[in-house]
Amino acid sequence: MDVLVTGAAGFLGGRLVRSLLTRGTLAGPDGRQQPLSRITLLDVVEPAGFDDPRVRLVSGDIADPEVIRAALTPDTASVFHLAAVVSGQAEADLALGQRINFDATRSILDRARENRNRPRVVFTSSVAVFGGPLPETVVDGTTPTPQSSYGAQKLMGEILLTDYSRKGYVDGRALRMPTICVRPGVPNKAASSFASGIIREPLSDQEAVCPVPPATPLWVMSPDKAIAGLIHGHDIDGAGFGATRAINMPGLATSVEEMVDALRMVAGAGVAKRIRWEPDVAVMRIVSSWPGRFDAARAAALGFAADPDFESIVRAHVRDACAGGS
Amino acid sequence: MDVLVTGAAGFLGGRLVRSLLTRGTLAGPDGRQQPLSRITLLDVVEPAGFDDPRVRLVSGDIADPEVIRAALTPDTASVFHLAAVVSGQAEADLALGQRINFDATRSILDRARENRNRPRVVFTSSVAVFGGPLPETVVDGTTPTPQSSYGAQKLMGEILLTDYSRKGYVDGRALRMPTICVRPGVPNKAASSFASGIIREPLSDQEAVCPVPPATPLWVMSPDKAIAGLIHGHDIDGAGFGATRAINMPGLATSVEEMVDALRMVAGAGVAKRIRWEPDVAVMRIVSSWPGRFDAARAAALGFAADPDFESIVRAHVRDACAGGS
Repeated sequence: MDVLVTGAAGFLGGRLVRSLLTRGTLAGPDGRQQPLSRITLLDVVEPAGFDDPRVRLVSGDIADPEVIRAALTPDTASVFHLAAVVSGQAEADLALGQRINFDATRSILDRARENRNRPRVVFTSSVAVFGGPLPETVVDGTTPTPQSSYGAQKLMGEILLTDYSRKGYVDGRALRMPTICVRPGVPNKAASSFASGIIREPLSDQEAVCPVPPATPLWVMSPDKAIAGLIHGHDIDGAGFGATRAINMPGLATSVEEMVDALRMVAGAGVAKRIRWEPDVAVMRIVSSWPGRFDAARAAALGFAADPDFESIVRAHVRDACAGGS
Repeated sequence: MDVLVTGAAGFLGGRLVRSLLTRGTLAGPDGRQQPLSRITLLDVVEPAGFDDPRVRLVSGDIADPEVIRAALTPDTASVFHLAAVVSGQAEADLALGQRINFDATRSILDRARENRNRPRVVFTSSVAVFGGPLPETVVDGTTPTPQSSYGAQKLMGEILLTDYSRKGYVDGRALRMPTICVRPGVPNKAASSFASGIIREPLSDQEAVCPVPPATPLWVMSPDKAIAGLIHGHDIDGAGFGATRAINMPGLATSVEEMVDALRMVAGAGVAKRIRWEPDVAVMRIVSSWPGRFDAARAAALGFAADPDFESIVRAHVRDACAGGS
């Protein structure tokens, strides 16, 4: 079975590839687990650190249909489309965001529909599709009205994926991911970057800047649960999605304050003091437009799982960081 | 004041242009009525029958940015974007539908945002954005999950228009039009084409084919109310739209049976007998995915008006047809 992962040089993409290689199988067109014969890793820079005969590397601009044509071959049975421009960057550069977050998605779908095997396409969407006046708890029936260009582009991708799935061109699944934390590495231009930074940096003896107030609610998911969710989202029967292929993933409703409390519990008060509170209006405006709490009933019914509490997320990060990897 | 109307060779476009020329003013950037100095009519064929010094004709492929550049100039203060590929055609030819219904919309928005005057953009969306399992009455909070490519493309256009409006690039309004009837002329490839045909053809001594059962619910609007709605939608304050620039227009909840009853009332039983009932599964599938009843509270609050009953719609059509025009 031949699989394509876009954004494979990124944190989540790389972790997904390692999980797939270890696992060794995925659901084929008939729903039965089949061995992975090839995983193509696509990103703008060549993904490094994968020494496995099943791995094929392709690098290039994902918005270039020729690059997609090189990566997505007639044998490709499944696509995990993770490549994206993050929220802060998409807000600042509309053309770039549209090109990577929307046009590339369309290009992948147009290429995939040429395959006779009706590829499964797992698309990482985001809770950023929601915004504006929202209920205290977002439910599956809540209408997405994005208040960021990133959210708008992801929502358009969902609609396209659903239309192509309805027509039988692909078998799509758009998973609206919560804020993933704790991410390893360094801060990026995602408006949610701080959510990882305020845990990661203090644990590495570094100061972290928190641009939002302690009471800010966040809907989060650990990298472990995110990877498990992507694979589960791939393997389940697409017919179960119904009128839309987009689904709110189950997350953990927390707040910045609760996250810092969990950090204090795990690592001590001295560590938690390494957070400097420095409100940033631009970040606050984007983050406050995202909902902080969901009732993800549909996802639960489809077997997706959430993290139990934030302390376990911090402990898992400490475990990963000690293991020296991501 | 400089105005662009796309799809101006179409029935609704032409009628809008005539209304604008007669009316002679539209709300300017400050909300006050300003005289129309120029109306540019854009369509794939050159719109005919407009003998007015304020009219400028541009013909060409609306998905070609060069054509948009010729039609939408730095002076353009308002755009009525009506050009579209109809639902049946968009379903049959995905690439064409995407090009005209989505790419052209994006091209117009990208060109409009270069103007410093933040053009008002009125975009004709459709109730076809709704589909799948729906409540008996669709409300403003009902989530659109289109079950046709036409609906998907219109919904993506709404999202783009809202994002560009949020960023202050344009001042957009996406009006989700009910099925417009009675349209003059000949049947087209819209799945809703029969809704006009079953009234228009019998009144002209011709047989009409009705591809859906009598009980089929329809959410309709007369051409008069549609034109009034487009102009009202242009003139009101964009800030009143809130988190999304898309709005469900107020229509009349009727059924094919009620429509035929109204035809019988106005023109007699003999006329109504000219309808041949010949179910067409493809048309039924698209039409039955559209909602038949709305509570368009938000539109009512913004001052949009609906038709009182279907009989008045038939009478208005008879009046227009006798006047020898459309």
